[in-house]
Amino acid sequence: MSSEIGNMLHLSVFGESHGRGVGAVIDGLPAGEPIDLDELQRFCDRRRPGSSHLATARCETDVPEFVSGLHAGATTGFPLCFLIRNADVRSGDYAGFTDTPRPSHADFTAAVRYGGHADMRGSGHFSGRLTAPLCVAGGIARQLLARRGVLVGAHLRAVGDVEDKPFDSRHLDGRELTAPGERSFPVISEEAGRRMQELIERVRAEGDSVGARVECAVTGLPTGLGSPMFDGVENRLAAALFGIPAVKGVSFGAGFDASRMRGSEHNDPFVMCDGRVTCSKNDAGGVLGGITTGMPVVFEVAFKPTPSIGMPQRTVSLSMGREVDLEIQGRHDPCVGLRAVPVCEAVAAFVMLDLMMEGDANGTVRNP
Amino acid sequence: MSSEIGNMLHLSVFGESHGRGVGAVIDGLPAGEPIDLDELQRFCDRRRPGSSHLATARCETDVPEFVSGLHAGATTGFPLCFLIRNADVRSGDYAGFTDTPRPSHADFTAAVRYGGHADMRGSGHFSGRLTAPLCVAGGIARQLLARRGVLVGAHLRAVGDVEDKPFDSRHLDGRELTAPGERSFPVISEEAGRRMQELIERVRAEGDSVGARVECAVTGLPTGLGSPMFDGVENRLAAALFGIPAVKGVSFGAGFDASRMRGSEHNDPFVMCDGRVTCSKNDAGGVLGGITTGMPVVFEVAFKPTPSIGMPQRTVSLSMGREVDLEIQGRHDPCVGLRAVPVCEAVAAFVMLDLMMEGDANGTVRNP
Amino acid sequence: MSSEIGNMLHLSVFGESHGRGVGAVIDGLPAGEPIDLDELQRFCDRRRPGSSHLATARCETDVPEFVSGLHAGATTGFPLCFLIRNADVRSGDYAGFTDTPRPSHADFTAAVRYGGHADMRGSGHFSGRLTAPLCVAGGIARQLLARRGVLVGAHLRAVGDVEDKPFDSRHLDGRELTAPGERSFPVISEEAGRRMQELIERVRAEGDSVGARVECAVTGLPTGLGSPMFDGVENRLAAALFGIPAVKGVSFGAGFDASRMRGSEHNDPFVMCDGRVTCSKNDAGGVLGGITTGMPVVFEVAFKPTPSIGMPQRTVSLSMGREVDLEIQGRHDPCVGLRAVPVCEAVAAFVMLDLMMEGDANGTVRNP
Amino acid sequence: MSSEIGNMLHLSVFGESHGRGVGAVIDGLPAGEPIDLDELQRFCDRRRPGSSHLATARCETDVPEFVSGLHAGATTGFPLCFLIRNADVRSGDYAGFTDTPRPSHADFTAAVRYGGHADMRGSGHFSGRLTAPLCVAGGIARQLLARRGVLVGAHLRAVGDVEDKPFDSRHLDGRELTAPGERSFPVISEEAGRRMQELIERVRAEGDSVGARVECAVTGLPTGLGSPMFDGVENRLAAALFGIPAVKGVSFGAGFDASRMRGSEHNDPFVMCDGRVTCSKNDAGGVLGGITTGMPVVFEVAFKPTPSIGMPQRTVSLSMGREVDLEIQGRHDPCVGLRAVPVCEAVAAFVMLDLMMEGDANGTVRNP
Repeated sequence: MSSEIGNMLHLSVFGESHGRGVGAVIDGLPAGEPIDLDELQRFCDRRRPGSSHLATARCETDVPEFVSGLHAGATTGFPLCFLIRNADVRSGDYAGFTDTPRPSHADFTAAVRYGGHADMRGSGHFSGRLTAPLCVAGGIARQLLARRGVLVGAHLRAVGDVEDKPFDSRHLDGRELTAPGERSFPVISEEAGRRMQELIERVRAEGDSVGARVECAVTGLPTGLGSPMFDGVENRLAAALFGIPAVKGVSFGAGFDASRMRGSEHNDPFVMCDGRVTCSKNDAGGVLGGITTGMPVVFEVAFKPTPSIGMPQRTVSLSMGREVDLEIQGRHDPCVGLRAVPVCEAVAAFVMLDLMMEGDANGTVRNP
Repeated sequence: MSSEIGNMLHLSVFGESHGRGVGAVIDGLPAGEPIDLDELQRFCDRRRPGSSHLATARCETDVPEFVSGLHAGATTGFPLCFLIRNADVRSGDYAGFTDTPRPSHADFTAAVRYGGHADMRGSGHFSGRLTAPLCVAGGIARQLLARRGVLVGAHLRAVGDVEDKPFDSRHLDGRELTAPGERSFPVISEEAGRRMQELIERVRAEGDSVGARVECAVTGLPTGLGSPMFDGVENRLAAALFGIPAVKGVSFGAGFDASRMRGSEHNDPFVMCDGRVTCSKNDAGGVLGGITTGMPVVFEVAFKPTPSIGMPQRTVSLSMGREVDLEIQGRHDPCVGLRAVPVCEAVAAFVMLDLMMEGDANGTVRNP
Repeated sequence: MSSEIGNMLHLSVFGESHGRGVGAVIDGLPAGEPIDLDELQRFCDRRRPGSSHLATARCETDVPEFVSGLHAGATTGFPLCFLIRNADVRSGDYAGFTDTPRPSHADFTAAVRYGGHADMRGSGHFSGRLTAPLCVAGGIARQLLARRGVLVGAHLRAVGDVEDKPFDSRHLDGRELTAPGERSFPVISEEAGRRMQELIERVRAEGDSVGARVECAVTGLPTGLGSPMFDGVENRLAAALFGIPAVKGVSFGAGFDASRMRGSEHNDPFVMCDGRVTCSKNDAGGVLGGITTGMPVVFEVAFKPTPSIGMPQRTVSLSMGREVDLEIQGRHDPCVGLRAVPVCEAVAAFVMLDLMMEGDANGTVRNP
Repeated sequence: MSSEIGNMLHLSVFGESHGRGVGAVIDGLPAGEPIDLDELQRFCDRRRPGSSHLATARCETDVPEFVSGLHAGATTGFPLCFLIRNADVRSGDYAGFTDTPRPSHADFTAAVRYGGHADMRGSGHFSGRLTAPLCVAGGIARQLLARRGVLVGAHLRAVGDVEDKPFDSRHLDGRELTAPGERSFPVISEEAGRRMQELIERVRAEGDSVGARVECAVTGLPTGLGSPMFDGVENRLAAALFGIPAVKGVSFGAGFDASRMRGSEHNDPFVMCDGRVTCSKNDAGGVLGGITTGMPVVFEVAFKPTPSIGMPQRTVSLSMGREVDLEIQGRHDPCVGLRAVPVCEAVAAFVMLDLMMEGDANGTVRNP
């Protein structure tokens, strides 16, 4: 396999940046689930190029055509396939990279892996454009989850070294969770957002780019989802999140900070709250032993800076076998993390819905 | 599924801490691979309790019995099953945790997930003891990899805020890679090692524990392994590594630091070196677009502090539905990261061997 | 999962009979494999409605649009998606079957399985139309196999009780294997073919239908493909073949006849032939212990008679909860087996290519 | 993969005939399911050598040791591993077959597949002994199914050309279903049983063997299990059943006979019965469109005659590259079908439990 993921709910993603289109098949959706296409489009629009002047200037309407699996406004139980046509394609922008691979891009590894046969125009199947079908799939999953009281939200936790406030993972209501995603710039603190935007503007003006971190949370989950050792919540989310282009790290709860703590500091006493067992701090990010605690699942995703920058760079010519200068034209996001916010939500929604379906099958999802 | 992982090479782990034993089935090993049992034992001994006065006092010889799949010193091609009997079991130490779940442990989530039926003596299937079969499986994979020129090594990158030197991921030879694992304390810098040991001694004396980071690298890999979007090297390693108890974060190359960088700083020009295409810095950790670059694959794993500490803690009594005091007796590692060093190597070896086998099947693994 | 199959090579089929179209994603194809689209179309045309006056009168050109994974006439290594639009749709013909399920059809089980939400117009995802994407996928696999010396052929072994000659599975050359498929009526014996056509004409005139058996063979396979116990050649082919609508039985070699034989009669001595080890009779159908012997893989597939017949039948009205009369209009094949001949070839080609790729990964495919 | 099967419920079988033992891991069993070990042993004893004078004289007590996953008489939710030690091993009986492969056995294909490294003593992992762990796994599944009103039974439908009466698949109560398995000779008609035993005695006296057919049925299933196209009931059962050694054909309901019928004869009108929708005849064997109808699932499995016969045979010497005579000593069943009756039940029980668990996850299993 390769561009496929999921156990009960199976996603198969296809398409290239400058081919006919991108899309996916979702196999295993329950039948009879209404899908609100307007709401879905609004969600997908959050990642669309052109939705922000801070992102690439490529213009795509990105309206999915539903080929199968959707009838009379609801899922049929048959495999759901959708297709998003590519419209605004300028392959000339990318003509040369097969021979002179862009630094920190997949041009070189793709050339080796696919023996030069891959359609790498516009980065091919490695393009950020492949996050469009992830958003459609995850946007569908979000609707099923919301109907079951499970909400997914994310925000830009940091751009370079400018940090947003973190989610309050102990007391996180639906409003706080989803508000950042509804803003034109997806942060909690408007002040932090302003500084992030300034930074992105600045690196763009310099022909440079900058990395980012996205924090994502899922609330309303039942206790008891996930199956250790290798089908736990963390394994499953990480396996999926590393499928988003430019992701270089994934952590849960206190994450890498936990590695610097004492047990007495990190440990999180159980307490009673409204008659339910809950954690004091949720440092575990909602997962203990791979299984949901019933508190919000909270994780961070680290994005490297966009490798396509306007500045001159060095690379090699594969045909000549020697080093050459490279200047990348084309339209690129100065910060991939910005548009990745809804993509992280989408991937999380898909994985959590899959885990919910498995939880039903296990027949053991309940708070004691 | 749950305690299973792998595509071509499939691992199925079983066992509980205080039951009859632990073990695994490995299905898909090539036939005719000699296994040096002495070397395997030496590798497994690196994680064994009792191998260091800094670890738990539980004493197990941990010699696997090979039930199937191994004949005349070599793999047969049939499923390989091994069993490690539990010997030194003191279940009384853990009697009470079903009702009063230890903070930041899986006691509570297991109680919900398995409806109170799980055999949680000694933490059951969540115990660090389950890393013993991971080491046997990975130790076998290491031997197959070594025969193909692929080496795996790891070291304690940090204990709390005491840091070891990182691997030089640009120029990493086999000697530098494997030396830390052969030391009694697995670090590069002896000075850092001394300070880590002092820290571990100190937290143990205080009845406390401390988190850690492990850095692991794999050298000698061909270019072109891994299949994006979801079967890339990062997806597969992360999915497996989060199966090790206490892991809360996984990152590749510059990892979370990449999120703070500019593209001009992070980008890694391709250069020619001895007639081969290679990267200048290996900030990508050996993976671009989910596919190996041919440089060392380098990743970090964050471990939380051992949740079982000697200090008094608060938790709830599930039966009484109210908060109570808890004091944990028993034998515990003050720093799980220490014994996790060979475990990370084992998991990485298993995953990389699986990816090598798939690479053969793809028929496209070559440097152009 | 549901409409997905394959290990190294993964097929995900989608679409409904009267929706927008049908298609599939093939994930895992090697890169750089030329695909001859004319040859592919000729193969697909063998199952197309309208290709024979003995089949349904529905007229579809069935030309796949390749959305991804194919570039400059060859596979790219990225997921290959194709779409076949539905054109000649008369849903009115099927309007009533949601309430009055057709006997021996999936109308009733689909109503229960999908809670009445499935788009069952034209039988939805259960329609024989779903064999069109199987033919495209298998037709692509056929071209890769042929390039490696592996050929796939099939013929109508029987229609009702009219039997064709079986393949000579001991000495089966490419010519004999593929000749039936190239004829307008896919049989070995023209005389048998004439009698079968008469029978089909007769049952059609009576408003009835008739069952059939298809015999399929694969030649040129290496010895050593397949992994017992559950990934053997027979397991894998059977799992896929039962995905073809109307299949009720699958057997290999002597099949059910073997159950009536003595060992001394069925046993098949090994002999030397041109310096190679081979079997005397190939009663095993090319598979021993789930692994290819190097002789042709030969199997039979039993098709039930088309359940949609013109004669009046009895069924129940689900809404009224009582028995009612039913008359089925619409266009139906009087013998599904006829058009199933290339479909069996297609499914066999896909599975055998997957097994070949796994065999490469095992690294053990050779004749000693 | 190879010796593994299952979606929600995953089975991994290991062991060789003359190694240390055989066994399996079952991953995914629900927690808290009581297992009656005496009942399990009685079920397993039905396939044990020594249980009939018509079977091999090899004597094994076949009592599984439960290594993990079972605690206080019930499943824990953790992976369940059991081990059956090999006791009565006479490897000398099989010494020569690596060089002179037995006709119609896996000796030759295993030699190629595993490059001569497989431990083929006693047929290794291909041995009928591997059906012992299938019976334990299936015996456990039977108990979970029985608790949910689902019963599994089988009988010897034929030995050579001596036929037993078929199950009445339209009206099949639990008593009729399970009675044959409780008899010393598993048939419906005692008269047929007598003639079968005479035939088996006769072929054994002649140093020969004979094939057989097993008919198996599952009652009490809900309507709506199974997911077409490739995860239907037939796909899943067939994939598993072909893992039983010596199986050469699998068919459902009218099976191959359906291929000789007219639609008007085979079609099965829906009728109301006690307020429920049901079929008149159950010619479909309880499955339409890959989904259970709510009627008994009924299938037949064809077993070839035991290839190990006492009569002299011809084969080749792989080392000499020429044909030689072969005489097989050792203890062999003259009719593998006899002991295969409980094995078919076991495999069916395992697959159906897996499908039941998936059905819960789909959330759509109900009779409208």
